[in-house]
Amino acid sequence: MSSFEAKFTVPFSFPVHFTRGVFSPANPVLNEVIPRSEEPTRILAVFEKAVATAMPSLPGDAAALCSSFAETIDIHVVEGGEPIKNRVGFIGEMHRAIDGAKLSRHSYVFAVGGGALLDAVGFAAATAHRGVRLIRFPTTTLSQADGGVGVKNAINFEGKKNFAGAFAPPFAVINDFDFIESLSPRDLRAGTIEALKVAVIKDREFFEWIQANVLRLSSLHRPTLHSLIERCAVIHLKHICSGGDPFESGSSRPLDFGHWAAHKLEQLSQFRLRHGEAVAIGMALDTLYSAEIGLCSASDAESVHALIRYLGFETSAPELADTAALLKGIEEFREHLGGRLTVTMLNGIGTAQDIHEIDLPAMKRCLEKLRNHA
Amino acid sequence: MSSFEAKFTVPFSFPVHFTRGVFSPANPVLNEVIPRSEEPTRILAVFEKAVATAMPSLPGDAAALCSSFAETIDIHVVEGGEPIKNRVGFIGEMHRAIDGAKLSRHSYVFAVGGGALLDAVGFAAATAHRGVRLIRFPTTTLSQADGGVGVKNAINFEGKKNFAGAFAPPFAVINDFDFIESLSPRDLRAGTIEALKVAVIKDREFFEWIQANVLRLSSLHRPTLHSLIERCAVIHLKHICSGGDPFESGSSRPLDFGHWAAHKLEQLSQFRLRHGEAVAIGMALDTLYSAEIGLCSASDAESVHALIRYLGFETSAPELADTAALLKGIEEFREHLGGRLTVTMLNGIGTAQDIHEIDLPAMKRCLEKLRNHA
Repeated sequence: MSSFEAKFTVPFSFPVHFTRGVFSPANPVLNEVIPRSEEPTRILAVFEKAVATAMPSLPGDAAALCSSFAETIDIHVVEGGEPIKNRVGFIGEMHRAIDGAKLSRHSYVFAVGGGALLDAVGFAAATAHRGVRLIRFPTTTLSQADGGVGVKNAINFEGKKNFAGAFAPPFAVINDFDFIESLSPRDLRAGTIEALKVAVIKDREFFEWIQANVLRLSSLHRPTLHSLIERCAVIHLKHICSGGDPFESGSSRPLDFGHWAAHKLEQLSQFRLRHGEAVAIGMALDTLYSAEIGLCSASDAESVHALIRYLGFETSAPELADTAALLKGIEEFREHLGGRLTVTMLNGIGTAQDIHEIDLPAMKRCLEKLRNHA
Repeated sequence: MSSFEAKFTVPFSFPVHFTRGVFSPANPVLNEVIPRSEEPTRILAVFEKAVATAMPSLPGDAAALCSSFAETIDIHVVEGGEPIKNRVGFIGEMHRAIDGAKLSRHSYVFAVGGGALLDAVGFAAATAHRGVRLIRFPTTTLSQADGGVGVKNAINFEGKKNFAGAFAPPFAVINDFDFIESLSPRDLRAGTIEALKVAVIKDREFFEWIQANVLRLSSLHRPTLHSLIERCAVIHLKHICSGGDPFESGSSRPLDFGHWAAHKLEQLSQFRLRHGEAVAIGMALDTLYSAEIGLCSASDAESVHALIRYLGFETSAPELADTAALLKGIEEFREHLGGRLTVTMLNGIGTAQDIHEIDLPAMKRCLEKLRNHA
């Protein structure tokens, strides 16, 4: 009997650009991002239908710009949103498209859309040839500030959210602020809540910046919104780069707060609640719970609640009445994590604490308070 | 416009054990490999049917041994071999089994079988919860010496070999020499050729060791065969650990020689030729070509050919007559690599050189020589 210990590290790096008009001829970003090489440059560009509808010249502009350095660029337009992650056969479709476009591991997949499209197309790119280069062009506030800059790619499997997926850093991320202009005000706002989430659990200074700018943010004042996105994205990136466990192989977890209830509320509302809207309520709930069990002060909790509302979100919804179904969400979250429950609560503004047990009577009181508060 | 450069490294490590009787109560390896944790330990063990048939007590022994530390162990027995990588729906089946066994990212999938089963089950494990811990138990000479210790997992997609896959290091590899006793002499021998391949392109000392031990190896003398497997596996592991690009994101390539023709010969023979047997002929061909274009000496080529034959392999097959189909393999290999052809040839024994063009008339002469030689 003998043994050998294999040990190695894999370096990853990718740029995240904040820009406007990335596919216009005057914009240098794409030219900087894609190196020239001896291999012919091949691109498969996948656009979310809603984006291509709101900005109809986009696919053509992309094709025109890329034709100066790429041998081929294939354009696909697909329906985005959560259904794309449920669609049986979508990964196969993408693999067929990647093969049809003769992409190699050194070729490019462009994913232009919201978080769900980025997740699904990203998973297809990560698993074709064991990883084709993925350039993400997030088009929503939420995905620009949050998921679009991360290292996760996933689809749902038989009703299990994000069950099938891979950790695979993108080749580059291009946050184009023109893209979010294709959103409705409701969707534009929805993403701001994840920025508040990050501030609340991670960065008091950012929280205070949001407080100071809340009127501009709630009126969706563009330059302030862009700053919010950029600050939030950079906090995420720093968490990935310096957290020590970017692929979460240990107990490391993503920046998460209020999400166990949010996932459940989305489901219970049959997706009437947008993800961001459900997160707002989930955050309000866990903030209240943090105060209820004495982790944070009542005044801190009130500050968080106030800011959620000033940003334009409800902190309550009729679905809160379904206590039994909601509390089942805790058990599902435990299963998702694999045996040991870990839920992030607030120690105070800007500092989080993981807890491993939920006091159910206390949580029920919080649900009731939140419902009555509405 | 602004940008942020995300930069981080991800450390990986895994042990490779060489042992016998890993599932017998007296063997300490599995107990060493699987740490105790607060989370309940859950296992899905997937056995290749041929192995479970040849060693019928194996699944029960595994269950009995693991029951001392695991909360649950689910046993699945599946058909292995190349068809498992073509089976539409296999990954879904495995995901359903992983979900059914309530595995988390910290749970275990055991893959007990040959290279194809390890590839397919490994890909399922790599993409469930973005990576469940995989423990590989390679059962063939080839997978113990070669693929089983690597970082690749893949299945075929619509006829494209290994199209869908992921780089994901295993949690551990356990090379149990008892397992290869379930093989026919033909299959036992087949794996020795990949060891010779590694020696020929990478390690002259190992080549000379094989020369010195060729009689014992050709008679499948077990201790010598075990040494061959261990030496070859360690060379592979060192290549992964110190090659600088274990996930082959640059131009780094796996240890490869004679494989462009081998893949084609397997196909043309409708898999009458085992992979190892096809590799033997592919190596003979590319060795001849290396000499033909003056890269290595005729006497080096003769040494390689002699050793291939002494190990008990043919260096020719009727399929070599199908010159057009074979040469198409070069073009397919170029496409697989993405535009630029890179084929490993011999500079001499133990040293390889990548070339980017094939002299077709010279290659045709080699094909003819090899055919006539038979």
